[in-house]
Amino acid sequence: MKHIKIIDLLNNTKTLQEVTAKGWVRTFRNNQFIALNDGSTIHNIQCVVDFENTPEDTLKRITTGAAVCVSGTLMESQGKGQSVEIQVKKIEILGDSDAEKYPIQPKKHSLEFLRENAHLRIRTNAFGAIMRVRSTLSFAVHQYFQERGFYYVNTPIITGSDAEGAGEMFKVTALPFDGTPRTEEGKVNYKEDFFGKETNLTVSGQLEAETYAMALGQVYTFGPTFRAENSNTSRHLAEFWMIEPEVAFNDLDANMDLAEDFIKYVIKYTVDKCGDDLKFLEQRLLEEEKQKPQAERSEMSLLEKLNFVLDNNFKRVSYTEAIDILRNSTPNKKKKFNYLIEEWGADLQSEHERFLVEKHFKCPVILFDYPANIKAFYMRLNENTEPGKETVRAMDILFPGIGEIVGGSQREERLDVLVEKMKALNIPEEEMWWYLDTRRFGSAVHSGFGLGFERLVLFVTGMTNIRDVIPFPRTPQNAEF
Amino acid sequence: MKHIKIIDLLNNTKTLQEVTAKGWVRTFRNNQFIALNDGSTIHNIQCVVDFENTPEDTLKRITTGAAVCVSGTLMESQGKGQSVEIQVKKIEILGDSDAEKYPIQPKKHSLEFLRENAHLRIRTNAFGAIMRVRSTLSFAVHQYFQERGFYYVNTPIITGSDAEGAGEMFKVTALPFDGTPRTEEGKVNYKEDFFGKETNLTVSGQLEAETYAMALGQVYTFGPTFRAENSNTSRHLAEFWMIEPEVAFNDLDANMDLAEDFIKYVIKYTVDKCGDDLKFLEQRLLEEEKQKPQAERSEMSLLEKLNFVLDNNFKRVSYTEAIDILRNSTPNKKKKFNYLIEEWGADLQSEHERFLVEKHFKCPVILFDYPANIKAFYMRLNENTEPGKETVRAMDILFPGIGEIVGGSQREERLDVLVEKMKALNIPEEEMWWYLDTRRFGSAVHSGFGLGFERLVLFVTGMTNIRDVIPFPRTPQNAEF
Repeated sequence: MKHIKIIDLLNNTKTLQEVTAKGWVRTFRNNQFIALNDGSTIHNIQCVVDFENTPEDTLKRITTGAAVCVSGTLMESQGKGQSVEIQVKKIEILGDSDAEKYPIQPKKHSLEFLRENAHLRIRTNAFGAIMRVRSTLSFAVHQYFQERGFYYVNTPIITGSDAEGAGEMFKVTALPFDGTPRTEEGKVNYKEDFFGKETNLTVSGQLEAETYAMALGQVYTFGPTFRAENSNTSRHLAEFWMIEPEVAFNDLDANMDLAEDFIKYVIKYTVDKCGDDLKFLEQRLLEEEKQKPQAERSEMSLLEKLNFVLDNNFKRVSYTEAIDILRNSTPNKKKKFNYLIEEWGADLQSEHERFLVEKHFKCPVILFDYPANIKAFYMRLNENTEPGKETVRAMDILFPGIGEIVGGSQREERLDVLVEKMKALNIPEEEMWWYLDTRRFGSAVHSGFGLGFERLVLFVTGMTNIRDVIPFPRTPQNAEF
Repeated sequence: MKHIKIIDLLNNTKTLQEVTAKGWVRTFRNNQFIALNDGSTIHNIQCVVDFENTPEDTLKRITTGAAVCVSGTLMESQGKGQSVEIQVKKIEILGDSDAEKYPIQPKKHSLEFLRENAHLRIRTNAFGAIMRVRSTLSFAVHQYFQERGFYYVNTPIITGSDAEGAGEMFKVTALPFDGTPRTEEGKVNYKEDFFGKETNLTVSGQLEAETYAMALGQVYTFGPTFRAENSNTSRHLAEFWMIEPEVAFNDLDANMDLAEDFIKYVIKYTVDKCGDDLKFLEQRLLEEEKQKPQAERSEMSLLEKLNFVLDNNFKRVSYTEAIDILRNSTPNKKKKFNYLIEEWGADLQSEHERFLVEKHFKCPVILFDYPANIKAFYMRLNENTEPGKETVRAMDILFPGIGEIVGGSQREERLDVLVEKMKALNIPEEEMWWYLDTRRFGSAVHSGFGLGFERLVLFVTGMTNIRDVIPFPRTPQNAEF
């Protein structure tokens, strides 16, 4: 008999029918009650084994982690918290799981232990929930953009261009370290490398996406990006997924509107679809916070926090206003910040961003119009600024507990201004000929942003370490699996 | 006034309203008729300029490729093939395009020239259509799996594991070629590299996806994969996107059913959504085929070919049957094959695959149960085969004009058989500890396949070179942009 997924069995009100289910044993109580899970939902189905008529040998093999196939009658359940259960008539052990050796015991494991067993942690309730939420968020991303006529663009992962300057890059090569081909001057001869030039892993698909936006109008990327930075923090990965929409004819205001609407849509979609998983994660967070001193606990539960984002406008604040707020803030006056804010032009640190979002505004904040010299070359220079106080049409979205979740800008559409900026920053024009072509031929106002997908998953799941929201995290000294 | 997308203007029957449109000039005829495109559709909207009341200087700047903003009245069109047009009251040049210098002239360019201008080729009708179709196919992939309860898994791009053996790998490193850290024995000291070990770009996410399937049940990947192979053909890329579903409890038959259903769904979805783009590409292919001798032309048009796939079952043929057919085929007897088929066990070349698909069966073909020694280590060994004729539960789907589009298998779920196979092939067990854990703990029958996304896009668009269906192709000696 074809097996039925557990999510469908649990939603089935037609009891007394014969059914087959396959899955993995989560627990086996009293030699009688199997909690069976197949990943289709966080909920297990209870399978009641007729232990008197089941061989002892089979009963012994019903252990945590074992794969089994059960057939029997779907019955209304007497137990609490479940509508139906299976009265088992036949059970087959598909794959054993030696209880002595199986690393995932039915108890609480540390997150660090689970990271070392990333191939098995997905068998826990928490990681099942996290990864189902991640998958749903991914789909929401595509659906949002596709419904609105955006085209998905796969920008290159291996790139010969390193001008974006978003961070340190990994080298991609087919050249050997021993007997590396050399030029007459003794330099590495990249002409003999696979691509005939030096290549790296992309840090952003933005520049390529811009060329597509200037033809298709509205595009987005959603793919892996990389940073070879030795940041061993709970917010950084060497390999992470990024979403980068780019829209022709959008100015910075339209860009902010898009980002806010987009974030709300994908959160709403996920709250609607993943209620059970989010309820579990909310409970998990609550338990975790009980370990903390009262003052450090969240004021809101996970779902309250998500609904708060959905129900409130993001606060839009210019960099200049933000500096005023920070300069006059208590932690600045009491010298509690590690980096005191003294004057306009200071780069904001995460302590400042957190103050603004978590203490001052207590809601997501969009900071915009940053000083030109702390932002990237391609951002649109504002007109009519004071000399020495030039700003660009940049925006960052800051989230409570997460910090920067989005970085975006209106792009500099004026060829002469862009070229001048590149010269000042020693960005070689000849390597960027194709990017400059978008300004040479049919240039127009356009804007876009990048959203670090894992930071969004962190926010929605209430997890606190970014290594726990991507299946196999890549961090300094760690590329296992 | 907020501009309206051209696709919405063309679908608008409410004429006589004042509208604004933004886009790029495709052509400007008789100093009067602008064909304006904004990428939202392959169709242009005609904008009729009142040339007598427009400054000469502005008229001169309405050139192919220029970005413009037009405002005026939406009118029923007198022209053929268009329902509405804009009677322009105001036109603003947003970005000039010097007609002398703009590479994309309103004429036919060679595909090779367009590849060298991959940042601008998207401004042509053909590439606009191809990339809209690609985007739609991508979304269909996600929708198919998500509707059926599959979870999207992002398997790692940078991998420390190179056992999959699907092909040559690119090295990923942060070590320098000059002054490379060395061990005492003079070997490269990868402990000092970013990840503390040798790392490469993934060739497949399958092994990691299997670990997820053994917990979530049904999963799929859709991400970039890499081959450092010097294949300068029209079917190979160094960087391409692959879709890899993996399903617990599926045997090979269920795997074939899934693959066939999946392919039909995404093609149907795209035929339904991208009618105008596909009609254009069909016409394009027809024109191209006119250059060919009659005998080499397709018997079917593009849409006929797509509908043929939708309407017919894929022919399922065992490797053994296929060898019989090939051995007795005319090209084999007349020694027309470059590789003659003499006996069971021969690896099939693309000439054989093409014969089976294009000449013998004339429909998509699923070959299954291949000789064990020409397939990967993780494939399920068939029971009860003759000694020396061991086969594995592998399947390849072959498409007319494309060749192999899917490769998949039921996976070897038996720990002892798998370990023995790995030993025979010198695959180090200790590096694959995590993969073997899936067989140690709760193992079960499971299956999956990989579909090369660009080959699917080739088939659906009727293009013949894989470099023309990905925005910025990566091939030997080419990583521009």
